[in-house]
Amino acid sequence: MIRFDSDYTEGCIPEILEALSRTNCEQTTGYGEDPHSAHARTLIKEAIGQPDADVHFLVGGTQANTTVIASVLRPHQGALCAETGHINCHETGALEATGHKCLALPTDDGTISAAQVEAAIVSHYNDESFEHIVQPGLVYISYPTESGTLYSRKQLQDLYAVTQKYDIPLFIDGARLGYGLCSPYSDLTMQDIASLCDIFYIGGTKVGALFGEAVVITNPKYKKDFRYHIKQRGGMLAKGRMLGIQFEELFTDNRYMTISRHAIAMAQKLTKGLQERGYAFRFEAVTNQIFPILPNTKISALREDGFSFHTWGAVDEDHTAVRFVTSFMTPEENIDALLAKL
Amino acid sequence: MIRFDSDYTEGCIPEILEALSRTNCEQTTGYGEDPHSAHARTLIKEAIGQPDADVHFLVGGTQANTTVIASVLRPHQGALCAETGHINCHETGALEATGHKCLALPTDDGTISAAQVEAAIVSHYNDESFEHIVQPGLVYISYPTESGTLYSRKQLQDLYAVTQKYDIPLFIDGARLGYGLCSPYSDLTMQDIASLCDIFYIGGTKVGALFGEAVVITNPKYKKDFRYHIKQRGGMLAKGRMLGIQFEELFTDNRYMTISRHAIAMAQKLTKGLQERGYAFRFEAVTNQIFPILPNTKISALREDGFSFHTWGAVDEDHTAVRFVTSFMTPEENIDALLAKL
Amino acid sequence: MIRFDSDYTEGCIPEILEALSRTNCEQTTGYGEDPHSAHARTLIKEAIGQPDADVHFLVGGTQANTTVIASVLRPHQGALCAETGHINCHETGALEATGHKCLALPTDDGTISAAQVEAAIVSHYNDESFEHIVQPGLVYISYPTESGTLYSRKQLQDLYAVTQKYDIPLFIDGARLGYGLCSPYSDLTMQDIASLCDIFYIGGTKVGALFGEAVVITNPKYKKDFRYHIKQRGGMLAKGRMLGIQFEELFTDNRYMTISRHAIAMAQKLTKGLQERGYAFRFEAVTNQIFPILPNTKISALREDGFSFHTWGAVDEDHTAVRFVTSFMTPEENIDALLAKL
Amino acid sequence: MIRFDSDYTEGCIPEILEALSRTNCEQTTGYGEDPHSAHARTLIKEAIGQPDADVHFLVGGTQANTTVIASVLRPHQGALCAETGHINCHETGALEATGHKCLALPTDDGTISAAQVEAAIVSHYNDESFEHIVQPGLVYISYPTESGTLYSRKQLQDLYAVTQKYDIPLFIDGARLGYGLCSPYSDLTMQDIASLCDIFYIGGTKVGALFGEAVVITNPKYKKDFRYHIKQRGGMLAKGRMLGIQFEELFTDNRYMTISRHAIAMAQKLTKGLQERGYAFRFEAVTNQIFPILPNTKISALREDGFSFHTWGAVDEDHTAVRFVTSFMTPEENIDALLAKL
Repeated sequence: MIRFDSDYTEGCIPEILEALSRTNCEQTTGYGEDPHSAHARTLIKEAIGQPDADVHFLVGGTQANTTVIASVLRPHQGALCAETGHINCHETGALEATGHKCLALPTDDGTISAAQVEAAIVSHYNDESFEHIVQPGLVYISYPTESGTLYSRKQLQDLYAVTQKYDIPLFIDGARLGYGLCSPYSDLTMQDIASLCDIFYIGGTKVGALFGEAVVITNPKYKKDFRYHIKQRGGMLAKGRMLGIQFEELFTDNRYMTISRHAIAMAQKLTKGLQERGYAFRFEAVTNQIFPILPNTKISALREDGFSFHTWGAVDEDHTAVRFVTSFMTPEENIDALLAKL
Repeated sequence: MIRFDSDYTEGCIPEILEALSRTNCEQTTGYGEDPHSAHARTLIKEAIGQPDADVHFLVGGTQANTTVIASVLRPHQGALCAETGHINCHETGALEATGHKCLALPTDDGTISAAQVEAAIVSHYNDESFEHIVQPGLVYISYPTESGTLYSRKQLQDLYAVTQKYDIPLFIDGARLGYGLCSPYSDLTMQDIASLCDIFYIGGTKVGALFGEAVVITNPKYKKDFRYHIKQRGGMLAKGRMLGIQFEELFTDNRYMTISRHAIAMAQKLTKGLQERGYAFRFEAVTNQIFPILPNTKISALREDGFSFHTWGAVDEDHTAVRFVTSFMTPEENIDALLAKL
Repeated sequence: MIRFDSDYTEGCIPEILEALSRTNCEQTTGYGEDPHSAHARTLIKEAIGQPDADVHFLVGGTQANTTVIASVLRPHQGALCAETGHINCHETGALEATGHKCLALPTDDGTISAAQVEAAIVSHYNDESFEHIVQPGLVYISYPTESGTLYSRKQLQDLYAVTQKYDIPLFIDGARLGYGLCSPYSDLTMQDIASLCDIFYIGGTKVGALFGEAVVITNPKYKKDFRYHIKQRGGMLAKGRMLGIQFEELFTDNRYMTISRHAIAMAQKLTKGLQERGYAFRFEAVTNQIFPILPNTKISALREDGFSFHTWGAVDEDHTAVRFVTSFMTPEENIDALLAKL
Repeated sequence: MIRFDSDYTEGCIPEILEALSRTNCEQTTGYGEDPHSAHARTLIKEAIGQPDADVHFLVGGTQANTTVIASVLRPHQGALCAETGHINCHETGALEATGHKCLALPTDDGTISAAQVEAAIVSHYNDESFEHIVQPGLVYISYPTESGTLYSRKQLQDLYAVTQKYDIPLFIDGARLGYGLCSPYSDLTMQDIASLCDIFYIGGTKVGALFGEAVVITNPKYKKDFRYHIKQRGGMLAKGRMLGIQFEELFTDNRYMTISRHAIAMAQKLTKGLQERGYAFRFEAVTNQIFPILPNTKISALREDGFSFHTWGAVDEDHTAVRFVTSFMTPEENIDALLAKL
């Protein structure tokens, strides 16, 4: 079987396995207060160009989202997000379980605009019954989005300006951040991301690590007591150095970017092959998740041939959008094998 | 520096590192539905002698406790526990964050008795204002306890009988389960544990793994939809096989028990040495956590000599109980070095 | 000023004031365990034809909704509802504050259909990632809806059949129940309502009382321990007889229906007058809330003339739907005065 | 039957019933934005001597406590309180249901001291594992306490000084505030209460009203958006003027104090009579709740004679403390009747 279901079907970059072995007998304190975690935090602060940022390592993405948002919101506030946002769709109500509503905005391609966000905020305060309605308290976006698409620098600047105008934080879910930044369609750097929001996270699970996400808080207003929240929400690893060691390796020799580029190269080769064969796409194919539209018969045939991938909704009676995902480890022969069958 | 602060100061057993390397390029589905997790579940069900149990792998202990308890309780119910119970003391209110009160019972040595639990339940229903008081909905104990002590078979049988009488589940936190079962002071096997409660977990983080706990649900009443809860509480690892692989290794060739025995041997050697030197103990020294009472001057001297450990409360003006913890990896020379200084 | 903003702009029926005075010096137990509350429960059980139902009096509607739904759902479940449902729109996230997501279904007129509900349930379980998505655990509808519309007997039967098929409860918010049942467009009785759902509430606040809602649980499965939930969610009145006395009066001599009929008669007179003057309506005008579409200039003029009412969204550049609400106390001369200005 | 169970066994002062009748046909806006609520707020601000305070009317005491505390705390914080505090004992875990732990301090007479609070805060931050422990975020006390006792001016000043030193708010539950202030043992005025805490509430339910509590926020830091919280926690009455009208009457002509004095006079007469008969007391008898110790045979005899009251814990094999509560409406002949039987 050849898997294109996700970017978490394989293990990790070999440097991480080597480092885990190399450091296995070291004795360190727990809970992220060890030298490897400290070093990893320094590497990340250098990479984003913000020496004063706070960096925390959490186990996974749902935790990172929940912990950050619940640490920021007051009880009567909710998170503005795309209706397709991960927090709204695929976290089994983890945010609601902390007491907060997702304030979902309509989207076709996974992005939300500054104008949408401003309209939502303004309409809240203009409503005669505003105190009976959940107050927007944070804006959540994903870069890249759950549809594999990207915000342009201009779009992100506009969004951030709106959130600053209304004094609510902008939080970027970067579960696939590397795959966004390395896309030829991106006009943003990691430093840009860090300076165009209040909090974001750098995804490790989907980009080279066994697991782990690095939450970066750049706005001092949201830094206080964050480690209590990590502990309370179950995201504080006892052997915290496991996360530190992984991010040390990812942020050494620019590996985080290098391995992301491989995934993008594989996705682009696949995209080009599909385009040459005349396939249309449900969303613009710009990162490591692409969504071609295939005849249903072809989908069945591919599955019989041992390819694994997700469907993404019927387009018409005979056609369905599917999702192919590449990763830092996708072998080029897998792309070739798939294209050969298309 | 030589660390006796905890049993999570080192990495993992070498077989886990080898297995992670060996399987690194495999492609598998995520979220614990891979063949390694399936195999690990089978191994655990064999080890506990319950082929119909449900086994789930979660990332850490706070998560395991919170996810299990919150999945069982209705909103008006709380968890009976020792006042020293981990959920009551050291999880930053993670259980309360899911809406539930810890109903703490007094204890000196970390255990609670069947009589205490029954009295608490009976007094609840006898109170004229019972509907104004949190209802006991689950009993939480730790084996071994946070004080390093153990329940005898008789004590556990009595506790379970009481919880069955009142139809509320008994949940055992086994973060250090191996270190309890391998103690010469224990008269329980893993099969006993599995048959004397409704839900328990087998700790990996502190017993040989990099991270991970195996929650075992033996009572069918509490099995339904548990995976939703894992996802909601942030405990579902995307690359779930990381947990499966680790428990495969721990439950192959009886390793979980073998490595636990090493920690116990080291703790006993240290205990014997302390006893020979005339030190008293705050709690009975029966597992891998021991709590000798040291002169404050000795504590300072040890720290200057590079030993790291926690204090556990003043005993008198000049003496303080401390905690020394051994693990599956504790080198015998560390014990010797410590004894040489005592 | 003449108010058509809502059905809670005035006090209560005079019989309630008389009863409060008459009983003021009685000494009774608190928390709803007094003889008046007991009598009121009996009267309601007779009115709905279900001697075995459980009846509880709560202070208000948001509480009633939150308390009922949170008592029924497990943590990973949410409430299917119309996107315009009160719990989704106008309770400041009270349901989310208990940890549960509103699973909102699209609607134009405030109703949701059996087919919509079934599709939502089926699509949940068909989703490959179902465990990552909030599980439908209850269906919430309002009768009448927030748009003043009604379910027919057939529609309600179909809805209830679907919820029974999937074994999830149907809960009816009857904040304005009297105004629904007394509408000439309704083909349902209070007995029908009671037999076509698992839990519902009979609104007092908007229908003749100073405050108070009577929650009726007909399905034994959801009865257990409900009083604990009332207390926990803040809905248990110390002087509980205040609620009992009010429902005693409302359910004596069929007053609940008689006073509801007055509101409907007033709403119908206003509707007829508006229709004669050529006004269109945003929703079908069948209960005590009607939504005519007025020129914006007319809206301003009415406000200058001292009429108070809510707007309900622009229809085009020059026209806006408004909401006029009548109640059990609306004086007929207020209707005449309004019609004179239209 | 003659009831001494509580101070909520009767209705309300007659002026409230008259006012409800007099205003019944008025049309007003809802949710506390009516002229009566505005007037009541003004009267209260005059009574406490703080024109800039925010005053909000909530339905009941559990709501008032939960809404205030949850509006103030961040997720990782809990409320320091006496172990006998109402929030810890008799609200069915309402505070935990909002995600927060009660940090209970030992007490014999229902009070907690400045020294206890400071020690709890200091020991939190001194703990090596402080981030794993719920952080003290608010101090909750009751005046009078649940044991009928009082804080002296000095005690309250010291408590407030400690909370200010550590920048956490002091919240006073004044469910029986009138009965405290009117005690001859009190050296505090309502103005003192208002200036020696950050938030408090003036109880109406137990002091003359049908229901309702007036939350007063004096510290500007905690004022923002409080009405959202009231709505979310179910405490916002649709016909909000019912609360405003009641507090208008209570705070006209100093009635709140006058009626409280009656309860105290009755309690003191009963206390004197008990003392003359040689009975001891479990707590100092200084407000409207007194706790004499009676022989168990006497308790049975009184109940057979038709007296109703609560027991408060066995003192020895033959004696039990009981609670007798007087109220603004207690007839003097009830005191005489009880004394005649003692």
